Amino acid sequence: MHTPPLLRRLLLALAVAIAIPAFADEGMWTFDNFPAATVKQQYGADITPAWLDHVRLSTVRLSNCTASFVSPEGLILTNHHCAAQCLAEISSPQQDRLKDGYLARDRSEEVRCPTQYADVLVGMENITAKVAAATRGKDDKAAGEARKRALTQLEQACEQAAGKKDPRRCESVKLYEGGQYFLYQYKRYTDVRLTFAPEDAIAAYGGDPDNFQFPRWCLDMSVLRAYEDGKPARTPNFLKVNWKGPAENELVFVSGHPGSTDRQLTVAQLEALRASLPFWLLRAAETRGRYIQFAQGGEENARIVADPLTSLENSIKVRRKELDALLDGSLMAQKAKDEAALRARAGLAGAQDPWVQIEKAERRGHDLQLPYTFIESAAGFNSALFRHARTLVRAAAERAKPNDERLREFTDSSIPQVQQRMTAAVPIYAEREKLTLSSGLLRMREFLGPDYPLVRNLLKETSPEALATSLVEGTRLGDPAVRKALWEGGAEAIKASKDPMIRIALLVDPEARAIRKQYEDEVESPIDAAAEKIAAARFAAYGTSVYPDATFTLRLNFGTVQGWVEAGKPVAPFTPLLRAYERSTGADPFRIPDSWLKARATLDPKTPFNLSTTNDIVGGNSGSALINAQGDIVGLMFDGNIHSISGSYWFDTEKNRSIAVHTGIIRAALTQVYGATALAQELGAR
Amino acid sequence: MHTPPLLRRLLLALAVAIAIPAFADEGMWTFDNFPAATVKQQYGADITPAWLDHVRLSTVRLSNCTASFVSPEGLILTNHHCAAQCLAEISSPQQDRLKDGYLARDRSEEVRCPTQYADVLVGMENITAKVAAATRGKDDKAAGEARKRALTQLEQACEQAAGKKDPRRCESVKLYEGGQYFLYQYKRYTDVRLTFAPEDAIAAYGGDPDNFQFPRWCLDMSVLRAYEDGKPARTPNFLKVNWKGPAENELVFVSGHPGSTDRQLTVAQLEALRASLPFWLLRAAETRGRYIQFAQGGEENARIVADPLTSLENSIKVRRKELDALLDGSLMAQKAKDEAALRARAGLAGAQDPWVQIEKAERRGHDLQLPYTFIESAAGFNSALFRHARTLVRAAAERAKPNDERLREFTDSSIPQVQQRMTAAVPIYAEREKLTLSSGLLRMREFLGPDYPLVRNLLKETSPEALATSLVEGTRLGDPAVRKALWEGGAEAIKASKDPMIRIALLVDPEARAIRKQYEDEVESPIDAAAEKIAAARFAAYGTSVYPDATFTLRLNFGTVQGWVEAGKPVAPFTPLLRAYERSTGADPFRIPDSWLKARATLDPKTPFNLSTTNDIVGGNSGSALINAQGDIVGLMFDGNIHSISGSYWFDTEKNRSIAVHTGIIRAALTQVYGATALAQELGAR
Repeated sequence: MHTPPLLRRLLLALAVAIAIPAFADEGMWTFDNFPAATVKQQYGADITPAWLDHVRLSTVRLSNCTASFVSPEGLILTNHHCAAQCLAEISSPQQDRLKDGYLARDRSEEVRCPTQYADVLVGMENITAKVAAATRGKDDKAAGEARKRALTQLEQACEQAAGKKDPRRCESVKLYEGGQYFLYQYKRYTDVRLTFAPEDAIAAYGGDPDNFQFPRWCLDMSVLRAYEDGKPARTPNFLKVNWKGPAENELVFVSGHPGSTDRQLTVAQLEALRASLPFWLLRAAETRGRYIQFAQGGEENARIVADPLTSLENSIKVRRKELDALLDGSLMAQKAKDEAALRARAGLAGAQDPWVQIEKAERRGHDLQLPYTFIESAAGFNSALFRHARTLVRAAAERAKPNDERLREFTDSSIPQVQQRMTAAVPIYAEREKLTLSSGLLRMREFLGPDYPLVRNLLKETSPEALATSLVEGTRLGDPAVRKALWEGGAEAIKASKDPMIRIALLVDPEARAIRKQYEDEVESPIDAAAEKIAAARFAAYGTSVYPDATFTLRLNFGTVQGWVEAGKPVAPFTPLLRAYERSTGADPFRIPDSWLKARATLDPKTPFNLSTTNDIVGGNSGSALINAQGDIVGLMFDGNIHSISGSYWFDTEKNRSIAVHTGIIRAALTQVYGATALAQELGAR
Repeated sequence: MHTPPLLRRLLLALAVAIAIPAFADEGMWTFDNFPAATVKQQYGADITPAWLDHVRLSTVRLSNCTASFVSPEGLILTNHHCAAQCLAEISSPQQDRLKDGYLARDRSEEVRCPTQYADVLVGMENITAKVAAATRGKDDKAAGEARKRALTQLEQACEQAAGKKDPRRCESVKLYEGGQYFLYQYKRYTDVRLTFAPEDAIAAYGGDPDNFQFPRWCLDMSVLRAYEDGKPARTPNFLKVNWKGPAENELVFVSGHPGSTDRQLTVAQLEALRASLPFWLLRAAETRGRYIQFAQGGEENARIVADPLTSLENSIKVRRKELDALLDGSLMAQKAKDEAALRARAGLAGAQDPWVQIEKAERRGHDLQLPYTFIESAAGFNSALFRHARTLVRAAAERAKPNDERLREFTDSSIPQVQQRMTAAVPIYAEREKLTLSSGLLRMREFLGPDYPLVRNLLKETSPEALATSLVEGTRLGDPAVRKALWEGGAEAIKASKDPMIRIALLVDPEARAIRKQYEDEVESPIDAAAEKIAAARFAAYGTSVYPDATFTLRLNFGTVQGWVEAGKPVAPFTPLLRAYERSTGADPFRIPDSWLKARATLDPKTPFNLSTTNDIVGGNSGSALINAQGDIVGLMFDGNIHSISGSYWFDTEKNRSIAVHTGIIRAALTQVYGATALAQELGAR
């Protein structure tokens, strides 16, 4: 059983009472605080401000992934699984683009992804002092409200200052659990089109069984293009591809948007997580079973649940292994020791003790968890149609308010994206909706109980299945034009609507809002206030030699190309193409698609397929380029090994590895398998 | 957050250094150690040896439930859910007896339950010294093997001594985690027939949402009859029914077979349980989802999964709440304190420390858990057909060995029951088999990994779904005659069989046996040896003023009819019939069946339906009679409240309540709803 190195080091740091920088290869560094000196010292590489700016401006944030510009004409390289939602959205019973892949022979064939956007981080401003000024002297609840208001105002001012000619999306960012606040400015591309995606069978070869495993053989790539004014965007900052790939032990970097880590949470917070993960896992596993059984009903059934099933299975594996990590007594004991040391150093006792305040707030959170999850988070109404109804109902109410009094997801800064999703012509499948909605209602009744007033009100004379069926069949919200009309009609239109899903959303809304307010006031605000105190104590101890937890904002880390030792046996860092053929069973998810079977004779069986590195990444980094010291792409990150999942809580230097697609296989795929001539040329692959 | 009373008391006991008896109403007492003096002292009731013998000989053990003789002619009262498997087994697409219920108008219409038997405990012998003699001086592994051999020999000698004229089933029983061994002698009835069962809709009114809830309205009853030589059995020991039921606060007893509790496990064992429960829950929740989705395929689909779904949902709720209990930090801290006190008192340090030995063995158990679960426990081959194949393959091999060298489930004492199950004409549903088998294979591949040799061997050129389909469609083991022929043909027949399910069972068996042996030698034997030492320490401290953990053997406990206080509000101990009608939604599981709608006008709406008591029971006690001090039946236990589930680990005096059907509603049902004239007369209800 390993001792988590971060903690060991933190304790060491405490013991010698100096703040030491993180060792290779841990750390998700912000670009303003990248330890270039450490890299210089350890690897001799010069990471200059110009290098950092170039990489930052070449890095793209997608809805829940990372990507990179790879040509001056807006070409974007990312993972196949990052384009999976787009592929599902542009598919039909006649054309399954998730399964079959897609290649635009020229730019006229590039297909718009209905809900995709692409952001580039163009500016960062530290607003910690401004936020502190807004909350100073207030109690937790008032501070929580004031903080939200201040962030909305700062975002609004930032967007107004940028003007309409060169618009910016401004987002406030909380770092170090509230120890720092930044305002990040993004240039946003809202017209993103699909250029190329391989078949799902080779992109996700090995499927769920191989997910988070290594050795691995996945061509988890896709190519998109950003457009502006109907033309390919001009993107002078882009990364060149090095088709040879990296050498073993070579220094490599990952620039991207790690989604979320919990390495700085208190023990009470980790215990609360540990207690709540099974609750999510149980519901997810049941839905997984329903999807799998539903898919047995025929090809079209299988098609319409393919994308949500894959994404659910991925989440299940992540949370299952996170739970395992939290159930590992020795790791938790290490966290407790670490915390005790920081507490002793902070010397905040009694009513001032932020760790006690957090523990109390987490207990309150536990009490509120069930209604919050089922009613406010709408797990009880799990369906795209209800989410649309909820958004329409709330947007109508919120847009009538001043910007800084709105729920944060409906501020002026956020509205365009909400509207894009709301009005996009994305297919909604009635049978899938009934499945998820009835399942949500069923579990809400189980967990809140049949006599809980809202449950009783909804199900007094019907069953979850019958209610779900009548709502899905009765609503017209599946039609984007109907949603658009309600969006534009605002409060009047909502009030007048007889749509049953709108009526249900209206019925639920007062209670949902009340629970949310209670949760914000009694759980989030006290935690925010206490976490700020802990952050201050941590800064006092370590300065910024510690990196902040991941928050789906831009980070850079460094590492090397390396395997590891598993159960006493070395795992090599590169996988050869040949083994992919050898492992094929002919049946999904171990099926080599026809295109690859046909090309087999022309391919070099030793071509490296995937590789492992020591970079410290998590979900959200998917699609990130793996970059060498020259700033060229040598791989495409798409996963971590099974040990990487505990990275949510600590970094295991010995075993945590990230996994990339090798550039060698990308070239072979484009030139020898798919005949993607124009694309290969634009990428410089031939 | 409550402090577990048992532990508080144990600590108190330690503090004052005297062994004190358990307080009302905790305790699952063996009949040889019932605290009659305490009952006399606290309640003034005389529980005489004659009372105890009469109650014991009137109590019946079913496959996984309890029941009571209620007439001198073999009539047996138990729960509906205890007869659910029988009802499913005697149903067909034309006659859904689980859903519609059944009433034999006279004895000629009583239907045999294919796999049911009924045991009565007629003798108990303490064999602790004999077992100790067999293991003395041996190392853990050798002791484990010697113990099994000794138990088989003692059982065999006991059955031989009883002879064939009045045969006995002799079972060894481990009590106090190995602190005591007993040999229990049962009279077994193998011909058990169904007399009466109400509709599932009223028996399990409220279904899964209401399960483990109170207030409650379930007519969870059924009536069976034991037969001997084709005639109703003569059962001079039986319990009379008191149709008035009990008063609030009245002293009441439960005689029955609590299945399993873990109150004496070490902290390391509880932590191991805590880490493994999510693994089971995830797979169970997924299967639940598959059953629910499968049932949407039509009435017949719904019928064939109804019984396994109900039983799975029950298990999920139990284990989910058990996990919640184990994740409750303060309860675990209390266990740790308690353990520390006993350890200090025991003074066994270093290599002698049994707590350390158990911790080590549990770590090894954790390493072996995946292959053990999927291969030896056959979770990877989850299907009735595979279980038959496994049994046939193993029985053929084991029966060829001397009795005391066999796997314990194939000793002479166990074989008749195995054979009864094997050859019973119980329907097997191909679609359900494919569902569970493919799901098992799928998860085995996920958890052991696609490159695990056995997995690779099975799925080299196929998918879990395709393999499951070909096995289920290719095997002939669904036919009881085919199974009977293979059973009788023994090793020769098995070797010659081309049945694909037999071939698979043969393929898997060597590896399964090897893992089992490893698990027994490296996990079970060291734990057994260490647990005996802890048991000795506990006896030294408390004598038999502590009761043993439940082991599905006969126990008696006492308590009173009482509600409790939930979130500050009192819960009344009786529920009136009227509320059942008021809560009806018209849709399952809140649907009142037609028989009760028709009879409504003639029924007294104040008739008590269910009631709650403080008796300390768990699963396995289902179907137990609730008995007053006179030895008459005043209720029929069928459940506990939600707080009762933590009873696996500790007894919460304030909130743990058991739930019974009131005898008043039983009389109303028989006489006013179902017109069960003959039955009512035999029970003295009219």
